[in-house]
Amino acid sequence: MDRLLFGAAYYDEYMPTDRIETDVRMMQDAGINVVRIAESTWSTLEPQPGVFDFTHVDRALDAFEAADIAVIVGTPTYAVPSWLTASYPDVLATTRHGEGRYGARQIMDITHPAYLFHAERVIRELMAHTAHRRGVIGFQIDNETKYHDTAGRGVQRAFVKHLRQEFGDDLAALNRAFGLDYWSNRIDAWEDVPDIRGTINGSLGAAFDRFRRGLVEEFLGWQAGIVREYARADQWVTQNFDFDWTPGWSYGLQPAVDHFKAARTVDLAGVDIYHPTQSELTGKEIAFGGDMTRSIKGGANYLVLETQAQGQIGWLPYPGQLRLQAYSHLASGADGVMYWHWHSLHHSFETYWKGLLSHDLGPNPTYREAGVFGRELAALGERFGHLRKQNRAAIMVSNEALTALQWFSIETGFIDGVFGSSIGYNDVLRWVYDALFDLNVEVDFVAADDADLGRYDLLVAPVLYSAPQSTVNALRDYVAGGGHLVTTFRSVVADEHVEVWHDRAPHGLVETLGLSYDQFTRPRDVGLTLHGDLAGAVPAADARHFMELLVPEGAEVLACYDHDAYRDYAAITRHRAGSGTALHLGTMTSPELVQAVLALAVREAGIGDWAQELAGTVTVRRGRNAAGNPVTYLLNYSAAPVTLVSPVPGRSVLAQDAPVAVGDELTIGAWDLVVIEGD
Amino acid sequence: MDRLLFGAAYYDEYMPTDRIETDVRMMQDAGINVVRIAESTWSTLEPQPGVFDFTHVDRALDAFEAADIAVIVGTPTYAVPSWLTASYPDVLATTRHGEGRYGARQIMDITHPAYLFHAERVIRELMAHTAHRRGVIGFQIDNETKYHDTAGRGVQRAFVKHLRQEFGDDLAALNRAFGLDYWSNRIDAWEDVPDIRGTINGSLGAAFDRFRRGLVEEFLGWQAGIVREYARADQWVTQNFDFDWTPGWSYGLQPAVDHFKAARTVDLAGVDIYHPTQSELTGKEIAFGGDMTRSIKGGANYLVLETQAQGQIGWLPYPGQLRLQAYSHLASGADGVMYWHWHSLHHSFETYWKGLLSHDLGPNPTYREAGVFGRELAALGERFGHLRKQNRAAIMVSNEALTALQWFSIETGFIDGVFGSSIGYNDVLRWVYDALFDLNVEVDFVAADDADLGRYDLLVAPVLYSAPQSTVNALRDYVAGGGHLVTTFRSVVADEHVEVWHDRAPHGLVETLGLSYDQFTRPRDVGLTLHGDLAGAVPAADARHFMELLVPEGAEVLACYDHDAYRDYAAITRHRAGSGTALHLGTMTSPELVQAVLALAVREAGIGDWAQELAGTVTVRRGRNAAGNPVTYLLNYSAAPVTLVSPVPGRSVLAQDAPVAVGDELTIGAWDLVVIEGD
Amino acid sequence: MDRLLFGAAYYDEYMPTDRIETDVRMMQDAGINVVRIAESTWSTLEPQPGVFDFTHVDRALDAFEAADIAVIVGTPTYAVPSWLTASYPDVLATTRHGEGRYGARQIMDITHPAYLFHAERVIRELMAHTAHRRGVIGFQIDNETKYHDTAGRGVQRAFVKHLRQEFGDDLAALNRAFGLDYWSNRIDAWEDVPDIRGTINGSLGAAFDRFRRGLVEEFLGWQAGIVREYARADQWVTQNFDFDWTPGWSYGLQPAVDHFKAARTVDLAGVDIYHPTQSELTGKEIAFGGDMTRSIKGGANYLVLETQAQGQIGWLPYPGQLRLQAYSHLASGADGVMYWHWHSLHHSFETYWKGLLSHDLGPNPTYREAGVFGRELAALGERFGHLRKQNRAAIMVSNEALTALQWFSIETGFIDGVFGSSIGYNDVLRWVYDALFDLNVEVDFVAADDADLGRYDLLVAPVLYSAPQSTVNALRDYVAGGGHLVTTFRSVVADEHVEVWHDRAPHGLVETLGLSYDQFTRPRDVGLTLHGDLAGAVPAADARHFMELLVPEGAEVLACYDHDAYRDYAAITRHRAGSGTALHLGTMTSPELVQAVLALAVREAGIGDWAQELAGTVTVRRGRNAAGNPVTYLLNYSAAPVTLVSPVPGRSVLAQDAPVAVGDELTIGAWDLVVIEGD
Repeated sequence: MDRLLFGAAYYDEYMPTDRIETDVRMMQDAGINVVRIAESTWSTLEPQPGVFDFTHVDRALDAFEAADIAVIVGTPTYAVPSWLTASYPDVLATTRHGEGRYGARQIMDITHPAYLFHAERVIRELMAHTAHRRGVIGFQIDNETKYHDTAGRGVQRAFVKHLRQEFGDDLAALNRAFGLDYWSNRIDAWEDVPDIRGTINGSLGAAFDRFRRGLVEEFLGWQAGIVREYARADQWVTQNFDFDWTPGWSYGLQPAVDHFKAARTVDLAGVDIYHPTQSELTGKEIAFGGDMTRSIKGGANYLVLETQAQGQIGWLPYPGQLRLQAYSHLASGADGVMYWHWHSLHHSFETYWKGLLSHDLGPNPTYREAGVFGRELAALGERFGHLRKQNRAAIMVSNEALTALQWFSIETGFIDGVFGSSIGYNDVLRWVYDALFDLNVEVDFVAADDADLGRYDLLVAPVLYSAPQSTVNALRDYVAGGGHLVTTFRSVVADEHVEVWHDRAPHGLVETLGLSYDQFTRPRDVGLTLHGDLAGAVPAADARHFMELLVPEGAEVLACYDHDAYRDYAAITRHRAGSGTALHLGTMTSPELVQAVLALAVREAGIGDWAQELAGTVTVRRGRNAAGNPVTYLLNYSAAPVTLVSPVPGRSVLAQDAPVAVGDELTIGAWDLVVIEGD
Repeated sequence: MDRLLFGAAYYDEYMPTDRIETDVRMMQDAGINVVRIAESTWSTLEPQPGVFDFTHVDRALDAFEAADIAVIVGTPTYAVPSWLTASYPDVLATTRHGEGRYGARQIMDITHPAYLFHAERVIRELMAHTAHRRGVIGFQIDNETKYHDTAGRGVQRAFVKHLRQEFGDDLAALNRAFGLDYWSNRIDAWEDVPDIRGTINGSLGAAFDRFRRGLVEEFLGWQAGIVREYARADQWVTQNFDFDWTPGWSYGLQPAVDHFKAARTVDLAGVDIYHPTQSELTGKEIAFGGDMTRSIKGGANYLVLETQAQGQIGWLPYPGQLRLQAYSHLASGADGVMYWHWHSLHHSFETYWKGLLSHDLGPNPTYREAGVFGRELAALGERFGHLRKQNRAAIMVSNEALTALQWFSIETGFIDGVFGSSIGYNDVLRWVYDALFDLNVEVDFVAADDADLGRYDLLVAPVLYSAPQSTVNALRDYVAGGGHLVTTFRSVVADEHVEVWHDRAPHGLVETLGLSYDQFTRPRDVGLTLHGDLAGAVPAADARHFMELLVPEGAEVLACYDHDAYRDYAAITRHRAGSGTALHLGTMTSPELVQAVLALAVREAGIGDWAQELAGTVTVRRGRNAAGNPVTYLLNYSAAPVTLVSPVPGRSVLAQDAPVAVGDELTIGAWDLVVIEGD
Repeated sequence: MDRLLFGAAYYDEYMPTDRIETDVRMMQDAGINVVRIAESTWSTLEPQPGVFDFTHVDRALDAFEAADIAVIVGTPTYAVPSWLTASYPDVLATTRHGEGRYGARQIMDITHPAYLFHAERVIRELMAHTAHRRGVIGFQIDNETKYHDTAGRGVQRAFVKHLRQEFGDDLAALNRAFGLDYWSNRIDAWEDVPDIRGTINGSLGAAFDRFRRGLVEEFLGWQAGIVREYARADQWVTQNFDFDWTPGWSYGLQPAVDHFKAARTVDLAGVDIYHPTQSELTGKEIAFGGDMTRSIKGGANYLVLETQAQGQIGWLPYPGQLRLQAYSHLASGADGVMYWHWHSLHHSFETYWKGLLSHDLGPNPTYREAGVFGRELAALGERFGHLRKQNRAAIMVSNEALTALQWFSIETGFIDGVFGSSIGYNDVLRWVYDALFDLNVEVDFVAADDADLGRYDLLVAPVLYSAPQSTVNALRDYVAGGGHLVTTFRSVVADEHVEVWHDRAPHGLVETLGLSYDQFTRPRDVGLTLHGDLAGAVPAADARHFMELLVPEGAEVLACYDHDAYRDYAAITRHRAGSGTALHLGTMTSPELVQAVLALAVREAGIGDWAQELAGTVTVRRGRNAAGNPVTYLLNYSAAPVTLVSPVPGRSVLAQDAPVAVGDELTIGAWDLVVIEGD
């Protein structure tokens, strides 16, 4: 990406009046240099089967080309036209809730031939119509693609064929690997495989989910292949990845897509990141999403294809926040920030997911603040943008562990809801991620099959419930090779088929962690007593959600349980093995204590610096710009100004390039930032 | 209505023994002069298709005629016999939840020909059998008629035909009006219209709901037509309207029926009003339901066809409450009060929705207290009953706005539940209604298409989210013509197709209200600072649920937001335009503050009087009786006696006609009242 | 049962490796002398239709016989193989939620001929294969059998035939008995009976549930018949009964089975009892389940076929608890305690319902503690086991009342959820049971049709909402004959068809209880004032959930309501009738007050002794061992040691047989017990 991009999704299709010239002018005023079009507009592009209408696309391309605003063209396939499902009702995905009904987007079976046939035709027409246009810099295939719980007959039969292949047609091996003998679920003829939607077998269920994540990769690869037949060499292909949305915003690892694998199908990773704002703006979701999106393409910079402008009703940003958010994306390595969307819809469904413009389509405080950033970007973007990272810490993530913990939830051991509710994989992932963020330790993410863990000094592998033996070996070798590993409760419990290991726990890591356990429970009024380097780290601590009763076998005890029944067991341990260390959190605990534990690990790994001193004052994000100069962002996610002494020398890019020496006093306003470029 | 009616629903069909003579005697003792029969007893009247049995109807008519107790005959069509659905299963309404199952009442497709055929036959037989009877004073058609979420194939095809007509077969117009381009929902051939049950398009969804409210009007008109073929000139036709029941009682505007339109099909409006009691009895539901029912027939008096006697398990009235409630109905303009029901059922479902009699069918405290009222009514009813109102204030209500706010909820902007929950239309309607009630300001209700708003001095139009241009014009003209208008947040946002206006907000009322806004959000710890006439009105105030960031353009600021991010914006404003005023509440706030705002409006409109001085002491309801004398009800909805000085002269009707002068001390016992007839 | 049994369910089928010899050795070390096998393993026994494989059964039988560990063989029919439902999809029970999906156990229509055909074949094969084996001591038919909400076409048609028979083909009688006239539900032709799943008629719904409980009895009788064709005379047939599981453990009377009737089909009652543990271990569930299981077979000792070892994640026992629990079962009359299960599953669904062994299959604290008990049992079991009870108090229970109160819930009068939620039958049952437990008064349970109530001095009949006249007569006669009866609110309200009686309440017991009432409500801030023998019993008391406004007609008032509206009514009364007494609780109240009331009743009945003095200190359970000696268990369900003086003389069986005299000081450790054998 040469140019730093700043823009919005634009839907000429949805505009109440013909005002594209006005919009272009307002965009130019605000420094907007890119728009995304066409995504989700299939019924407008192809109002009847085989009848195409490119009026809106042409209007947009003409107007934006003329204004030198770049265009990203999205294939429209994530929302199907009613004529398609009227003719082929089973294009609507059959899910665990039964047959589908037309209405929303993302309701189709992404494997259905009728869908694929018509999708291919509209994609080819659109590509033929737009790929040659000068203004088009790239293509987005589909949008926020997932498998939409598709579980109809076709998908289930494909799954059976997949199992036959995976197990070499050996049903005995399947029964053994999945434990199907239990509750008479054994399958002794392939035609007896039941409707998977009803299964209670976590191995079978998790395998079905993994298979369906694979469908997403196939689908995206298929679309990318078609698009590449038309795209010029200077045009790239992207996808708009999104995250687990459980609490109502971009929260954690996406359960329905393996982003590391799916990202192979595209040239450039795109992402949507939505997050709370107003008094709840912390920068964590922006950083989390950014770190993840950068990581899934091997550290390459990425595009924020969607983020909120005014957003939902409760998300209207306070003055300063919109600009701070835009800088936050760049500080994580984004090469572009695009809002969803330019205007606010006057109809339908997302009418109150508001864009830069309100329904009156005139200038407003949000639009004006975007312009402040847009103009700064145009003037100074090369100084603070195109940020390259060289992180020395990483967090290991796993879709397989996430899915397995839906079947065997942390607090109950059952599918969530069967015996109460439970925290999930992402709650623990965010617990460690957020603590590192608060410590101003930047991280990459790595997949569980990453072949080169040794490039990191510190590796945190939270709740890695299920993993193949090769991953267990890699973790062991990582520590043996001098790495610094942090593991948590519910790690390496089960293999890749979600079979619980039947040797001593934690499987394969007893010597690495220097401990074992054969008991665990849910804590009820259980405190923690801190020892060694953790002694006094926090005023009071307790065990939360889950606790392993650890028996040290060489590990140093950093915390014990404070409860009559558990006094003999360790809760947090550290084990030095050669030059490596392995720190284990046998229980969840407060954000403050996990921060203290991770601060220990950071020091142990030799990657600590002044940034941890600023924890609680400002957020620090760093990298090198295209010129190779170090760039330091100091971000104030709070409603009060903060004052600090500068930790680095350089020039304050956003303050008329004022020179800054180490030790100079800096004041950063509420919801504001300082960017220092060194040399 | 000549006679003031007092009675109960009576079901000879459900009695465990033959005891109609006993019941008649007990009714006479209690002053009961009317019963309602036959409603919901289809399977007894027509045990098999075409086989009729009027045994119970005849027994009832004979007994009640002999006792000079009037009879209202209800058509039995709101509960279908099993033989009908056994033969025609799709008489059971298909709803968004799928196909129906037999069991409850109100589960049929009110447009299904098999239902209509059999309904017509039983209605004709019943009418032929009863219309000539002396004791029959009127007919109730069906009961609590709604559209029961009917959404099967027939209804959906009728809706398509309705759309074709509404849009003159112009699909482009439909797509434009509803914004169907969004998410590829565009329809370019009528045969492609999808199952509406899945739609995410709020305009389409709201149109379907409005269409289905129209089905209720058609159905009632059709039934009324049949009944009128048989009814004598002195017999009237009514319907038992009911209300939004969200919190578990008669709470607000009915979403599934347009009462103003549906009321045109009947001669006399009937209503059921159920409400909390014991320590939660406030009189508000009785007044709200009464004011509404009076208003939908142009101010005519109405019948309370159903209200609770002992009611639900938690509603057993405290001593005094049953009598106070009966008077409350008359004080709103009811010409009759009827309990559901006489006895308590020994079986089935509503066994613990108890009538005047308990299961033992003997006298009990509730029955005895009803008798106190019944005898007072017989002796003095003409003095305190037949009350005529001449209200100078009105509240504008709109089914369209209510439905639209279900699609675009106040707090989230989405269908309720999608991004959290929200208050709804009726919560805001009741917020203003209850404040006026507490101020002792009596109101009428008007529909959004009311052609003569000028007959009111004060008009409150809460959350009128969607309305046609003509209504916007009418509001503007109302103020211009000297009217006093109170509007709230979320008003005139969208047109009649629920398209959000794309000019400056509030559409068409910027000059009238003297303000504009292009930002709004959900308040989070936002206080209010009060100014001008509101200064000091309440000790502390805050913004709740929703806030518009108002920019005055001529309006006087009565309240601002107390929050760093919003300090520059107004929250409550008043704008004088000629002799009219427009008061706008940009946010929801406490009951106390909205009461203060409305008290201002009342004074502004010149309709204030001594009744506001009694706010917090007693509830005042007024009117003129048939003799043309002013009647003042002073109602004590509390467990403690209150003492006040009489605001009016006259005679205390319920206290041996004791003369009362202005200034005389009056003491009103717990859950008791005083009625003063002036001259 | 000669031998006291101690063991676990064992699944060779589920083992990750061949380790049966290791398991046998570990069992022997722990004193385990019985295993239960084969239950739920149909797909392993019969991998394809008609193809049988007894490998695992044979391995188990061989190994356990060799080790002199007894074997209980379970028929595998509670989990169906996928080949069965693949061929016959409607073997999956159609329930009120619609058609079933394959996956879990207990999802079949237990009346479906295809199920019965295949079930019979596998049972016969299994019996032929195992019945002759020396080590097999008995058979368990099916497991936790219930009717699984089966409501498909076949079941519904059978229900109609059942109704035709019950009502002698007289539809008028049916309509009358069930009150079907209401809401037009009348049925005037048998072919018109609608799908019962939608009914709102509580009588019809309750009759369907009772009919379906009958299906369980039929099914168990059918299985038992087959098994007995093969069983030796020394082998018995049992069933694993289980309880209402509402809060997530064995809580109350089972709604879906009439245990008293179903127990007739077996020789020996088995039961599963699961309960909270850690700080919530009280012994109540163990005692409740034990008293019930003993009672349903006329006082015979029973087997605990399943109870938790490590159990769910939140149930890991504190040190001492597992042993205390095992003794608790014996103290209630269990002749055997078996864990579910030996090991912990490595797959599928109940992976975290952990057995004696953890997933590592090695010794662990739970296993070791089991061994402590196992060795004590082997050494001393005959001293403290085989306990025979001779209780003088009983609680009357009724499936019919329980079901009826689901239709007419205590607090709302409606199906739970329609107008809010409510406590249920079992909450009241446990309220009185737990109070008696806390008073150290041991009880039996009796069914509502028990023909010999007079064998008890004290009878508590809580919330006996519906009962036939014969039961009402029996209660009346019980008191008249000198019995001491305690009744509660919501008693004898309706007959066996759930028709509410229409004479004075409480029907048929006005004279017995010396009171009547015709009003009741849900209390809202209603206190109680205590009188007579209750005066001062507790510091403060209030009415909860439901209150009858009692009018004494001869009864002594023990408590009145403290509320303006209810001051004239009694809440708790006592009526002496001859030598009998009838104590009535018109309202629910605190555990402390009901305990005081029941303490009065116990004294009145002449069955009080020193055990009540120990209430709050230790739990006392008593009986006579096989030698006829009195055995007294003193159980400390708390985390703190307690000290008391011995109430009985004898020898402290678990303390080296130390002699104990009355008045000797005894100290019982946390989660520990003392057992004293007298002579």
